[in-house]
Amino acid sequence: MAVNSPLPVAAELKPVAGVEIGFAEAGIKKPNRKDVLVMKLAPTATVAGVFTLNRFCAAPVQIAKAHLAAAQTSGKPIAALLVNTGNANAGTGELGLSLANETCAALAAQLGVDAAQILPFSTGVILEPLPAAKVIAGLPQAVAGLKADNWYNAAEAIMTTDTQPKAGSRTVTIGGHTVTLTGISKGAGMIKPNMATMLGYLAFDAKVAQPVLEQLVKHAANHSFNCITIDGDTSTNDSFMLIATGAGSLEITSVDQPEYAQLRDALTELSLFLAQAIIRDGEGATKFMSIIVEEGSSVEECRKIAYSIGHSPLVKTAFFASDPNLGRILAAIGYAGVDDLDVSKLNLYLDDVWVAKNGGRNPDYKEEDGQRVMQQSEITVRVKLARGAATATVYTCDLSHDYVSINADYRS
Amino acid sequence: MAVNSPLPVAAELKPVAGVEIGFAEAGIKKPNRKDVLVMKLAPTATVAGVFTLNRFCAAPVQIAKAHLAAAQTSGKPIAALLVNTGNANAGTGELGLSLANETCAALAAQLGVDAAQILPFSTGVILEPLPAAKVIAGLPQAVAGLKADNWYNAAEAIMTTDTQPKAGSRTVTIGGHTVTLTGISKGAGMIKPNMATMLGYLAFDAKVAQPVLEQLVKHAANHSFNCITIDGDTSTNDSFMLIATGAGSLEITSVDQPEYAQLRDALTELSLFLAQAIIRDGEGATKFMSIIVEEGSSVEECRKIAYSIGHSPLVKTAFFASDPNLGRILAAIGYAGVDDLDVSKLNLYLDDVWVAKNGGRNPDYKEEDGQRVMQQSEITVRVKLARGAATATVYTCDLSHDYVSINADYRS
Repeated sequence: MAVNSPLPVAAELKPVAGVEIGFAEAGIKKPNRKDVLVMKLAPTATVAGVFTLNRFCAAPVQIAKAHLAAAQTSGKPIAALLVNTGNANAGTGELGLSLANETCAALAAQLGVDAAQILPFSTGVILEPLPAAKVIAGLPQAVAGLKADNWYNAAEAIMTTDTQPKAGSRTVTIGGHTVTLTGISKGAGMIKPNMATMLGYLAFDAKVAQPVLEQLVKHAANHSFNCITIDGDTSTNDSFMLIATGAGSLEITSVDQPEYAQLRDALTELSLFLAQAIIRDGEGATKFMSIIVEEGSSVEECRKIAYSIGHSPLVKTAFFASDPNLGRILAAIGYAGVDDLDVSKLNLYLDDVWVAKNGGRNPDYKEEDGQRVMQQSEITVRVKLARGAATATVYTCDLSHDYVSINADYRS
Repeated sequence: MAVNSPLPVAAELKPVAGVEIGFAEAGIKKPNRKDVLVMKLAPTATVAGVFTLNRFCAAPVQIAKAHLAAAQTSGKPIAALLVNTGNANAGTGELGLSLANETCAALAAQLGVDAAQILPFSTGVILEPLPAAKVIAGLPQAVAGLKADNWYNAAEAIMTTDTQPKAGSRTVTIGGHTVTLTGISKGAGMIKPNMATMLGYLAFDAKVAQPVLEQLVKHAANHSFNCITIDGDTSTNDSFMLIATGAGSLEITSVDQPEYAQLRDALTELSLFLAQAIIRDGEGATKFMSIIVEEGSSVEECRKIAYSIGHSPLVKTAFFASDPNLGRILAAIGYAGVDDLDVSKLNLYLDDVWVAKNGGRNPDYKEEDGQRVMQQSEITVRVKLARGAATATVYTCDLSHDYVSINADYRS
């Protein structure tokens, strides 16, 4: 059960002009489930992405990066994205690259484009060869079914251990132009490197120059997918792709255009929604926490502290237990690695409750106030460092018995 | 139930000439438990320590550091260590310093020394004022009971949530001199910042010059207490103290003396035993893992990778489940932050089983071999980086349902 995360409604997921979606049940790991997704793009589309920093980055990640780079110089734009679940094609060496290339070539042939115009993505078990023949056998079905109004199926087709599909749409007006944004995401959020990679795809119908799109995807990722953590593990296959189809009337050629900031904020808001949906569906999650660190001397130190709190198993079990255990949060701040931190100036809040003042227990703090907040399913932890004006936010969930059960029992 | 860690036998814990031990049941948190420990040292003793790096370092830690420094210049050696459980005196500001100083002054008066000759240590709940009056009221009982043959009681007196006392003794012959080493430790190992701080005390009856002792304590800590992790949390009160009583015939004045290395190795071996005892008694632990990273280009990168594996909740739950889940270990290596790591040269072993070869699954690896090793209660994970000659080892335990239960239910 995801935390305060209602199922998306298919009718509310708006088609994005310039994107057609098809899927197949290719039986990659199990029969009778959607496991191949094709997203076909208009020739006017630009695509930019951010990828896992894991040194064991998977074959499709390596190829997607190379194809994105090649599209800049070849004059042949990215024509389609191909996603499979059931196998991550990671830790598979030269064979993995070769098999991923085969799937790109097969889809390219059916779409009448070059293999280098296809971006491949995989998620699933690692260290096992990609069943490329099954993926390829599923492509005709996916291509035959291509249509614009297919985002709910897309969200389902990329699920692995997710308990529900994750998708959202927005319509915004920017400089008099209507822009439609629709995105999907999956994965228990950097939590199951061998199975549940984090994937996000967000398409919108503006025309955006490639260098601008690169800025947009970095900004959106840094304020969404890069702000979430379930257990600190990062996958071999994590990817987030931003697709500007160019099919609408808004055109952005420079970050100095007045419309840039509006578009950036709209994309970031939807990206954050998609990223938070992953946390809300985190393995065993019963609570959703926003860790906000303010008044830092740099964003980096704020992030360090926010992640230190968000990664602490002690903090996370305290949230699971609805226990307002201030000591655990303060200790996590203390060992975050900010060496010159003056803890005697530090203030800590749980929602509206001021729990620690100047590094110690707030004399006015009452345990029952902390207890009240900890009972909630959504909790904000706010740390004020009194060192500057920088801020950072990290989103996470609690650590429950179900987390251990899911991960201990996963392969058996 | 600690993992393969039999109870210490009181009769086997050898007195160390120059150390007398007394304890009290002072009712600091609960009645009828040993919660105050006094270790009185001979005037010939030198003392050196390493302390938590947590920015929320507790009042007693600040005072112990200051008193150690003062002893170097005052000509008045450290005369006693005073440890209380039940309250950590952390996050307590000026009042905390004042209360800790009061306890030092009270013990000093009874021993006829200066307050600056006392080293205070506390472990227990944080953010609450130290009940100094209770500690002080317990001192006469502790001082009256001072005797050399009292190490088992010392080990019990520093326990908090430990399921068993941790202590060990060694007798070694160095350069014709017999040296007796006895030590105690406590704490579920950097795991409960608000309660179960890691403490270690190791005394031996050689005479060691202060600068040499500083080297010894750093070396011993770096190869023992600094190599263990349960959940990555580090406490506000962690301390490890090395006490050379000077009561024996061995004297070390320089690290260049031939006896130095022998003494260093003996101290390190016992320190490692005491540190591993903490992991074996880790909260909910059912398995003990040694993570050995070899062939690195620096010790630092080996430690990064070893800790990345040792901290991964996914890896730790896989060990709990006896699941030879290679993907999780490889992914943890990949995100350890060694940016130029060439994973295609990497080899991974579970005990004697070669599981990953050149970054991928070893073609000769059989799942049942991995399964056999994972069933054991002691497992060695060995990673070979093929980058150099550096090596590092980290000791950890698995992540079980009991870990969540203990930490979720702890305060209720």
